[in-house]
Parts: sequence; structure tokens; C-alpha cells
Amino acid sequence: MTYPKNTWYVGCLPHEIDTKPLGRRICGEPMVFFRGDEGRVAALEDWCPHRGAPLSLGSVENGKLVCGYHGLAMGCSGKTAHMPGQRVGGFPAVKRYPAVERHGFVWVWPGDSARADDALIPDLAWASDPQWAYGGGLYHIACDYRLMVDNLMDLTHETYVHSTSIGQKEIDETPCTTRAEGDAVTTSRFMQGIEAPPFWKMALRANGLPDDQPVDRWQICRFSPPSHVMIEVGVALAGRGGYEAPDEAKVSSIVVDFITPEHETSIWYFWGMARRFRPDDAALTAQIREGQGRIFAEDLEMLERQQQNLLNWPQRPLLKLNIDTGGVQARRIIDRLIAEERAGAEPAASVAA
Amino acid sequence: MTYPKNTWYVGCLPHEIDTKPLGRRICGEPMVFFRGDEGRVAALEDWCPHRGAPLSLGSVENGKLVCGYHGLAMGCSGKTAHMPGQRVGGFPAVKRYPAVERHGFVWVWPGDSARADDALIPDLAWASDPQWAYGGGLYHIACDYRLMVDNLMDLTHETYVHSTSIGQKEIDETPCTTRAEGDAVTTSRFMQGIEAPPFWKMALRANGLPDDQPVDRWQICRFSPPSHVMIEVGVALAGRGGYEAPDEAKVSSIVVDFITPEHETSIWYFWGMARRFRPDDAALTAQIREGQGRIFAEDLEMLERQQQNLLNWPQRPLLKLNIDTGGVQARRIIDRLIAEERAGAEPAASVAA
Amino acid sequence: MTYPKNTWYVGCLPHEIDTKPLGRRICGEPMVFFRGDEGRVAALEDWCPHRGAPLSLGSVENGKLVCGYHGLAMGCSGKTAHMPGQRVGGFPAVKRYPAVERHGFVWVWPGDSARADDALIPDLAWASDPQWAYGGGLYHIACDYRLMVDNLMDLTHETYVHSTSIGQKEIDETPCTTRAEGDAVTTSRFMQGIEAPPFWKMALRANGLPDDQPVDRWQICRFSPPSHVMIEVGVALAGRGGYEAPDEAKVSSIVVDFITPEHETSIWYFWGMARRFRPDDAALTAQIREGQGRIFAEDLEMLERQQQNLLNWPQRPLLKLNIDTGGVQARRIIDRLIAEERAGAEPAASVAA
Repeated sequence: MTYPKNTWYVGCLPHEIDTKPLGRRICGEPMVFFRGDEGRVAALEDWCPHRGAPLSLGSVENGKLVCGYHGLAMGCSGKTAHMPGQRVGGFPAVKRYPAVERHGFVWVWPGDSARADDALIPDLAWASDPQWAYGGGLYHIACDYRLMVDNLMDLTHETYVHSTSIGQKEIDETPCTTRAEGDAVTTSRFMQGIEAPPFWKMALRANGLPDDQPVDRWQICRFSPPSHVMIEVGVALAGRGGYEAPDEAKVSSIVVDFITPEHETSIWYFWGMARRFRPDDAALTAQIREGQGRIFAEDLEMLERQQQNLLNWPQRPLLKLNIDTGGVQARRIIDRLIAEERAGAEPAASVAA
Repeated sequence: MTYPKNTWYVGCLPHEIDTKPLGRRICGEPMVFFRGDEGRVAALEDWCPHRGAPLSLGSVENGKLVCGYHGLAMGCSGKTAHMPGQRVGGFPAVKRYPAVERHGFVWVWPGDSARADDALIPDLAWASDPQWAYGGGLYHIACDYRLMVDNLMDLTHETYVHSTSIGQKEIDETPCTTRAEGDAVTTSRFMQGIEAPPFWKMALRANGLPDDQPVDRWQICRFSPPSHVMIEVGVALAGRGGYEAPDEAKVSSIVVDFITPEHETSIWYFWGMARRFRPDDAALTAQIREGQGRIFAEDLEMLERQQQNLLNWPQRPLLKLNIDTGGVQARRIIDRLIAEERAGAEPAASVAA
Repeated sequence: MTYPKNTWYVGCLPHEIDTKPLGRRICGEPMVFFRGDEGRVAALEDWCPHRGAPLSLGSVENGKLVCGYHGLAMGCSGKTAHMPGQRVGGFPAVKRYPAVERHGFVWVWPGDSARADDALIPDLAWASDPQWAYGGGLYHIACDYRLMVDNLMDLTHETYVHSTSIGQKEIDETPCTTRAEGDAVTTSRFMQGIEAPPFWKMALRANGLPDDQPVDRWQICRFSPPSHVMIEVGVALAGRGGYEAPDEAKVSSIVVDFITPEHETSIWYFWGMARRFRPDDAALTAQIREGQGRIFAEDLEMLERQQQNLLNWPQRPLLKLNIDTGGVQARRIIDRLIAEERAGAEPAASVAA
């Protein structure tokens, strides 16, 4: 196993289960997500105890998940509620996965349900703050989830993969510093007196700031287990304090990345951006979402081809340069969590994302 | 092996080989079907003894199957007839599979040809009776052939899979009775005083009967080895005798299902409908065929996804409810035939389908 | 291993790397081809020593191959030249494959580079002779490269696979003669006083010759290791000397076939035609190329399906008829080269193609 299972992952987006159930494999487990009693989210094994059909092909009726093959009605607990013409008391239950809707995501705990604790779901302050707006999406990528963690903890790739939008030579030229604290890893880079790249010029204009003046730019990548990476990014008019500049002199946001293993070499990548300027401007949210979606799609081929190379040369070592320190330290934490899980330890306490 | 081989399966439809040979894997054996001497059907291993090219890429000339690579002419017996510039007497033969065209189907015996007996081909009374008309088609489905037997021996799935055409709640509410007799299994359900579902309303109208009156409806599923399922279905105006009602008060037909394993988890599904009303109405035949094709296509995703689930959880038990009795008993017969075949026994006597 | 590796294969066409690097697997080795210092071709392992990304997703800058992920600049020797913010002296090198651009092709040596010798690249006299013109293309085919050698060394398949263009019954009826000389194998067939097939009628007209008169036709297939097949083909007005006829009475060309294993059961098939008539007629070159491309595409399905059959019946013997002698002898040479390579011998001397 290359991922911990006694932890919360994002399983799906709320809108994905608004009208019908959703089948999705998470950490190797085929799950069905749906809204059961009173619209509460539920996640079960995607298996009908009658004849093994996937429950996700069914529909929700009166809070029960009704199998689309022969009508068995499954309750949110994994116990069959009823079935036409049958006594269902003795039917074997299917596995229930703890699932919680919070902060605009559906969280799921693929491991030992007895250990699931809602308090371990990361706290996303921006999610319930009206001063913030959020937009995002979902990509399926055929790569080990740790390659995406590496990708996000070393933003020098922006210069090459995203050269027309957020990349710029100064990223390469500015050293980053990495710090581990408990289960969190932070990699920061601060650039001063540079020209803003196209994406940030757009954001400056959107925020009513000039786009033709030097800026200070920051990138603060925060990894927390199992595979969440929140990146504070922004630019301020040069010399106004950079990251600490007053709101009227900067534009900033948080790049939100929840990386959920589908299995060993594929992921569900929930990406988005939370911003603290013009939060009520829905058109801007849509515009940013569209732009970010296009930029983040540039990583897909690289990550999938990198994965193929790693599978082709499984023993070949990779370099661990200074720029890779963030990813290296994140993997160290992941490895420890997997080892602890194997040894039967309690899940680690949450780290606010 | 999950299927008997010393038995007759439908290999192809006659029109599939009218103009050229057809390559098709049956019970794991790559075969080529073609019309040889005097247009008689033949089935051989799809292998040219010269260089291993598939003979199915060739053409038929003067009753011989001519390889499309270098022109070896193969006879219907599996012995090479001639080849340009070669003495072919010493060429190794390819396997011949007994093949017979009868009742509008091409039957093939994938097992020990010495045991093949035309008398074991099921007798389809409707096939040569001018009072009947037949229309049908062919689907390839990635599932174990026994899942399709299960599907057809438990029609409660109509309520869920085919809810807009032939499904109705009363199927679930009416118990079925199952009876095994020799190698045949019959599951019957009789519903009384119900509203006809859309497909049967169409059939009532087509037969000049009112579609707005209560009807009695019947479903009599007959399994016979290896995997044929004939289903007598129909509706009669309520209170006129149901299944026994006179012709002018009912509309009835036989759903014809020949299920041929391609290999362990894929099938060639020959489906169709034989009807005893307005047999000369070709437009009606086409209309019914089109409607049945659409309805039966609704099963494909369910069966393929069920198969994937079973492969993912190979040891997980399935329930055997009262509604599953038909399938369970059919599998018992199949298992016995496979065991007998393994033990070297003679093929069982035919059961009229 | 079913192919020798200490030998020159065609790796790509020059135009494929004119604007960007090219990733291509050759003899099981994932390679990247590009133009490095002064535009000279280079081939390396398609692996960035930093994080394993494929270098072929990058770009060439100042003669270096710059990784598209984090900007590592790889030199043509396989040693990292530089990388932003890094000391690269200790970076592990990637494998360099000897690569040479010659005769309009990029040649690559996938084996032991210490044994690579430019002098072993076949000499293609027509390639640098202004009296000749060349046009060709590239197909990927899922078959063992030796099946394509067989295909080209036995042209009786033209009658069946290419019946509408270059096939004709007289090919079957005319015996061929095969001669092995050192590492080369030649199979020849001479037909006299026949009607030209459609492709050759077109060529006769293009060369200002009548297309309605009997012709003498020749096919001289020359195999040289590892898997090059040059085929002299042509027709002359009947009775003018056939192959030896004066230029004004014939039309002739060389079918050029370089077959490069991608892996055990797939190939890169570089095909083309060199002609010695109207060499400056670019429209004619395009027309011939288009026609040849269409004809050679007819082999694809046959070879891929033959390969599937061979994989399905791995132990089943093939016939070795007189028409197969060319392929059989070519395989004997291939087998010897593989055995010698395994034993550590020097690569064999070149055979002019």
C-alpha cells in the first residue's frame, strides 16, 4: 500500500451526487456516493448483496439507494432496508465508509471506520467566510498521488509547464526555503520587483490595480497529510510589503489541492482557487476557474508520462535537489503514517489546512 | 472451463456469412464460419496452415476458403484443397467444427466433433411454421454467459432495467414458480387484471385489440442446456383465460435467447422474438425488432458492470432468493454437464427448446 | 530477445525532429531523438535524471535538450549541461545511443555503443544520386518485425493482399529463386509477356510509355541484416531485355523497407520508393508516395491479425514452402546474429543495401 487509509480524503464534489448516485474507486475501494436520509451524504461499497451489481447504477428513493437491477433498497448504514417480496433481515451488509459533507466537499474515510473522527477533517477557514470566493474542478490523472504532491511542492515547474500563464524565469532564480513542523511541510519563495506573469496581470486588473508595474510575488506551499496542498499565492505592487502588503495594494489567493488516490497509480485531483478579492463576482470566479483549469491541465501529460517512465524503470533513483525538499519531506511524513497504520496506531491528529 | 463444449451453440446468423467469411471466437476457440460446397455452412479453426494468418480475412471461391495472404485454398473438412505452385498433400489439417444451418441459425459444436449429433440441435417449432414470424439481432457483451442466463430467468429486473417499456411494479409483486424437469428449468409468473406496459400496449394495438383495458399477463421462462432461454410472454384481455385465452383476445410471442460464450467472461448474445400474430407484416417485424433491440441493450451496462464487480470480489457470495431459483437451478444443470464432460460422458440428449 | 541490438536501425525520419524532440521506443529502449549542437542528431534515454520525466516532452535550446518539467538542460552526450540553481556535476548520466543522419534517415544503434561503427550503416547509392528521387512514409504495426521480413521476401502475397494495384496471377505462377550470399539473401522472380497491373500501368504512362502492351516484370528482393529489404521492381516493354532493357523501354524503382523493432511484437515500418525516372517531378513523387502508402496499408491488418494468431497458438508450426525460402534464410541469419551477440562477438560487417 502506498497511501494511508485511516484518514479523510475528498471523495467527490457535492454537485456530483445531487441527482443520482456516483460510483468512484477511492484508495482501491469501489465506492458509491449518494444522498440518503434528509439529503445526508453516504458512501458504501459499490456492491449489491443480492447479485453483485454496482449500486451506483441505481437511484435514490426516499433516502434509500435502490439497486437498478432488481430493486433491493439499501440503507445508508450498509444494511438492506427492503426489497420487493423479500425478507431482508438476513442479507449480508455492505461496508459503510464514513462520509461527511463539509467546506464544500464530500469527505470519505476509506480505512477502519471505527477510527474515523470528524474532528480530523481539515478546517478550511476560507470555506465559510463571505470575504472569500471559491471555484474549482476535478481531474482524473494516471499517476501515483505522490507525484502530484511533488509537483505542487516544487513550483519551479511553472516556468516550464505553465510558461504562458504563471511561469517566469525568476521562480527558477529565487531559492525556496522548506520547513517541516509536525505533520506539515511548508515551502516558500518570495520574489521581489519582478514583472507579473499573464495570469497575475489579469488578476491585478480584475482587482482594479495596474498591471504594468513591478510586483513582489510569493508562493507558500503547505502540505498536510495525507495529500492536501494549500498554496498561498499572490502579487503586491513592489515595495508595499509583499505578502504583508495592505489589501488595496495586492491580489492574493489560495490554490487548493486535494489529491485522492484512486489506486496505486491513478488519482482524483480536486483543484481550485479561493480568493479574497471581489468574492461576489461570479463571472470572475468562472473566469478564474476556467483559466486555472486550463493551466492545471498542462500538468496531466507530464505526470502521466513521468509515471510511465517510473513504471518502466522501477529501481532507478531520482535526484533529491533543494527544490525537491518539500516533496521529499512530505513523502517522509506519508511513509511514517503508512508505517504507523500498518502497526495499528491511532490516526494522527489533524493539521489545519 | 465454465461452459460445456460438447453441445450445440448458435455460432452466427446465416446472413453474416452470405458474402464473406466470418471470424468469431466461440468457447475460446477462434473459428472461421463460411459457406463452402453448395453453400453449406462450415466452421474451421481460423488459422492458415501456411503462415498462421486468419483464414477469415480471405474469401470463398468455388466452395473453398481462400487465404487472403498467399492464396492457400482450404476445404470444408479442414484439409488444404490446393495452393498455387504447391503440392498440398502433406499440409497439416486444421480443426473442423461441426456446423449446421437450421431454424434460421448457424449451429456449431465447439467440443469433440466425434460426439456431435444433429439430432441434439433444439427443435424450434415456430421457426418453420408460417403462422409465426421472427426477428432478432446479436449483441456482444463482456460478461459470463451465466449472468445472462440469470438475467433471463429472473424477470423482476424488467421493473428496474426496462422500466419504460416492459417493466411494471406487478412483476415484483407477483411470486413466480420454478420447476425443473430433466435438463429443463421453467420459471412462470402470471399477473391478472393489470394495466399493460408500453411495449404490450403497442402489441395490442398492432393486433387490433384495445390498449386501455385491464389485461392478464404471463411470463414463462424455459432454460435448456447449454444456455438457451425461450420465454413465452403475452397479455390477454382480462378474464378471457389469460395464457389459455383464444387468439382473438390475446397477443403473445416467444422471446428467443441463444447465449454463446465467446470466452469465460464474454458472450455473443443472439436475441429475438417469434410471434404468432400478423406473421406477414414485415414492417411490424422490423418495428418489434427495433424496440426489442433497444430494450435488450439496456441490460448491457448492468451485466458488464456486474461482471467487473464479480471479478473484483471473486470470493464474495451472492444471494439465492426465491426469484433467483430459475438461475440457480440452471447453473446446477450446467455444472453437472461440465462435470460429465470432464468425466468423458456422452453428451446429454436434447431438450426441445 | 528476438532482435539483434548491436546494429544500425532507422530510428526516425529527419523531418520528425526538425522542430521538437521525438520520443520513440526502439528495440524496447525508450529513446528521445533531437537535434543538438549544430543541428546534429542525437539519441538518448528518454529519462530526465532529476525526477524521471520523459525528456521528449521538452524542447531544444542552444543545442541542449531542456526538460519540460523543471528545466534540466541535457547535453548530447547524456551528461547534464546545466540546470537553474543547481550544480550538475554529480548528476547521473543517461545512456547515449549512437545516432547518425545519413541517406535521408536517422540511424540509431540500440546496443553496446562501444561497438557502433558508422561504416556499418548501409550504403544507399540512390540516396545521393540526382538521377533518383525518393518518397516514403512510416507505419506503426503491431507485429514481430520478422513477419514483415517474411512478407517482403515472399511477394506472392501481392496477388491476394494487393489484388487491385500490384497483384496479378502470374506472380503465383512464376517460380522464384532464392540465393544467400554472406549475410544477404536475394529472392528473384521474372515474368515475361504479361499485362502490367494498375500501379505499373500508371508508372508506364508517367514515364511516357504505352500501358496497353505486354511487359516483362521483375521483382528482386534483397534482405540484409538486421531487417532491411530493398526490392528492385519494374516492368519493361516485352522483349526489350526485361530487367536489362534500356531506360527508354522500362520503368523501374527500388522499394525501400527499413523495419525497426519497437519491441517484441511491434515495429516502426519505414517504407518508400526510390525511382530513376523523372526524378525532378515532385508531383509524381507525391502521387507515387500516396499510392504506395495506400497499398502498403493493406498489409497492416493481415500482419497484426497473423501476429495475434501466433500469440494465441505459440507452439504451432508454420510451413516453410519454396516461396518462403527468402524469409526462412533471412531468419537464419538473424538467429545467427542474435546468437553471436549473446556470445559477445563483434558486429558483422555491413552489407551494402
